[in-house]
Amino acid sequence: MALIVQKFGGSSVANPERIKNVAQRVVKTFEAGNQVVVVVSAMGDTTDDLIDLAKQITDSPSPREYDLLLATGEQISIALLTMAIQKLGYKATALTGSQAGILTSDNYNKARILNIDSTRILKELKQGQIVVVAGFQGYRADGEITTLGRGGSDTTAVALAAALKADLCEIYTDVDGVYSADPRLVPKAQKLAKISYDEMLELASLGAVVLQPRSVELAKQYAVKLMVRSSFSENAGTLVWEESNMEKDMIVTGVAHDLNTAKMTIFDVPDIPGIAFTLFSALAEEQINVDMIIQSNSRNEYNDISFTIEKADIKKAIEIVEKVKKQIGAQKITFDEEVAKVSIVGAGMISHPGVAAKMFEALAKDNINIQLISTSEIKVSCIIDSKDVEKAVRAIHTAFGLDK
Amino acid sequence: MALIVQKFGGSSVANPERIKNVAQRVVKTFEAGNQVVVVVSAMGDTTDDLIDLAKQITDSPSPREYDLLLATGEQISIALLTMAIQKLGYKATALTGSQAGILTSDNYNKARILNIDSTRILKELKQGQIVVVAGFQGYRADGEITTLGRGGSDTTAVALAAALKADLCEIYTDVDGVYSADPRLVPKAQKLAKISYDEMLELASLGAVVLQPRSVELAKQYAVKLMVRSSFSENAGTLVWEESNMEKDMIVTGVAHDLNTAKMTIFDVPDIPGIAFTLFSALAEEQINVDMIIQSNSRNEYNDISFTIEKADIKKAIEIVEKVKKQIGAQKITFDEEVAKVSIVGAGMISHPGVAAKMFEALAKDNINIQLISTSEIKVSCIIDSKDVEKAVRAIHTAFGLDK
Repeated sequence: MALIVQKFGGSSVANPERIKNVAQRVVKTFEAGNQVVVVVSAMGDTTDDLIDLAKQITDSPSPREYDLLLATGEQISIALLTMAIQKLGYKATALTGSQAGILTSDNYNKARILNIDSTRILKELKQGQIVVVAGFQGYRADGEITTLGRGGSDTTAVALAAALKADLCEIYTDVDGVYSADPRLVPKAQKLAKISYDEMLELASLGAVVLQPRSVELAKQYAVKLMVRSSFSENAGTLVWEESNMEKDMIVTGVAHDLNTAKMTIFDVPDIPGIAFTLFSALAEEQINVDMIIQSNSRNEYNDISFTIEKADIKKAIEIVEKVKKQIGAQKITFDEEVAKVSIVGAGMISHPGVAAKMFEALAKDNINIQLISTSEIKVSCIIDSKDVEKAVRAIHTAFGLDK
Repeated sequence: MALIVQKFGGSSVANPERIKNVAQRVVKTFEAGNQVVVVVSAMGDTTDDLIDLAKQITDSPSPREYDLLLATGEQISIALLTMAIQKLGYKATALTGSQAGILTSDNYNKARILNIDSTRILKELKQGQIVVVAGFQGYRADGEITTLGRGGSDTTAVALAAALKADLCEIYTDVDGVYSADPRLVPKAQKLAKISYDEMLELASLGAVVLQPRSVELAKQYAVKLMVRSSFSENAGTLVWEESNMEKDMIVTGVAHDLNTAKMTIFDVPDIPGIAFTLFSALAEEQINVDMIIQSNSRNEYNDISFTIEKADIKKAIEIVEKVKKQIGAQKITFDEEVAKVSIVGAGMISHPGVAAKMFEALAKDNINIQLISTSEIKVSCIIDSKDVEKAVRAIHTAFGLDK
């Protein structure tokens, strides 16, 4: 008898009809002889609706009451899903985050899971119950209700799977797996049967968001077998796991792209120590997330520094960099919103030289200019003109034999 | 420094604007030098919407999950009201039923409050906090969430006032007090400055529902001073309390009427022991609430039995009584939905003979036929034709000098 954790997102439980469908899927897994723990998010737009209510009251809601408010969303969906499972003739119990023993850190709104006391869940499972747990929430050591921040339900599911030593953690979503590229952009994109944690992490952080990076990290740490699949079809999904033979199969696993990026360059920065620190600490202080950083030694005593940030941060970034410019004695700033990041990811490239060169070749053949390049052990990213993104992703996808 | 419990119903917190108004009223009481504990219901139709969601899933929701579902309604309103109070610059804390220490019996959906551990509330009050407590909910000894059933928020407020030995418990509603008759029926109806618990109980059970009878009983038991007033005006309300001089002031306090009543009569019931038991236990088994019961000894060995029930129960009642008819050898059944109950209530009538006669006289003068009469120590009720109800209430109101 296997123990399976199944997580259903907000769109999977958006209305009573869909909740009934989820119940049927859960029961099917149970009927196949498994113990089942289900994690659910709030129904559809419930969380956004609650946030909107709070905004109508105040611009700066108190963190404690904000979590008390948001936690109701999942409390509603666990109650309804449990009723739907019971209606099908099965025993089921709904548990809030605190009832499920999910102890978190003290910081409201973005608490981290510290520990799970699984006594209650194990007791219910032993009694033949299907256990339905509220995602996204937990409790502090002093008993107060916390939430884990956006995408926290994935994290709840993986943490429960780790604590319960589950055989599998299924993440149901509105796509049926992880693809070698965005299928809307690349018609020949292939669904991956499996992918390693590290590759999934690079893909998630590169704009192909299927899973919350936080939950993938946690899965990696506890070696939780993750299966990403669609709640609207019976198709097999993508298994996220560490496999020793994975690297042999494919050099490049997928091609990701990200249009939500903007590029800034500071020209003629004096080549003395502490400059990068001054610049990037100023940006960090304002919570601006800097992605790629490239420093080029253009002339003897001067450098150019380019970096990319999210589009939403561009205005604030310009203000900050203008101030820093004087401070560090730089000459000029430029920024460009019409850029895109295209990346290849694959654990195989560690042991295969020439992978980056092959990507550059594919882009050059199609006359696509590369503005910035950044590499890690298992990925290569290029910043290109945003108008070229579709052409670029397709060319790279074909070049690495991903079209099949 | 006085301690005041204020309770606001669903219509008082139906939207963010109204929640802000409530916050202002709460803060005003706090600014006047009082400690304030606020009890709130769910926003507007939230509870009905949640019930509707459950109904779309199943006809018979599990009681435990049903309470988990319904409890979210008040959790939302306490979070929002607390934010609104904080926005005005005051310290406030939202507490769910269990956080507020409201221990209930084990029966879900209609739990009764067993005890309140006020440690947490007192700690918050001491720190200068305005405490906002979720009405209608509590927790069982095993930690599970319960709800108190409809109107439970009034009960929460009164129970808290009793536990905290509050100086006053204000119940804010959409009417500005208790009237000597329904103002929609009797233009000359007067708002009562005060009324005793027993009179309020009789009025509440007679169809003039302002307060839940349960909460009035609890208030009487713990001598909690109740003030009923409007959340939409600054008008003084009605004080519900036991006062020794109350009886001297007025013989009759108010006139109530109830159109949600139906009359059944069984004719020619043999005059032998056990007949009433057979009939009314059969009705009770089907959860039919019987209000007035009159047995008249019409002929030597036969009785006629008349009784009133709620209109909604008439169909089920006919089925049951038809069965019982054969069993007890009665001859005929009649039922009448076109009836109304008109009642006078007043603690003063205990020591004033002739009160009932005066009521009958007022009805007779206006040519209104009385079908059934029932009396208790502090009330007299008559069943009349429903078309006469307006005329009857006005005539009685005038006869007892309530027009002022």
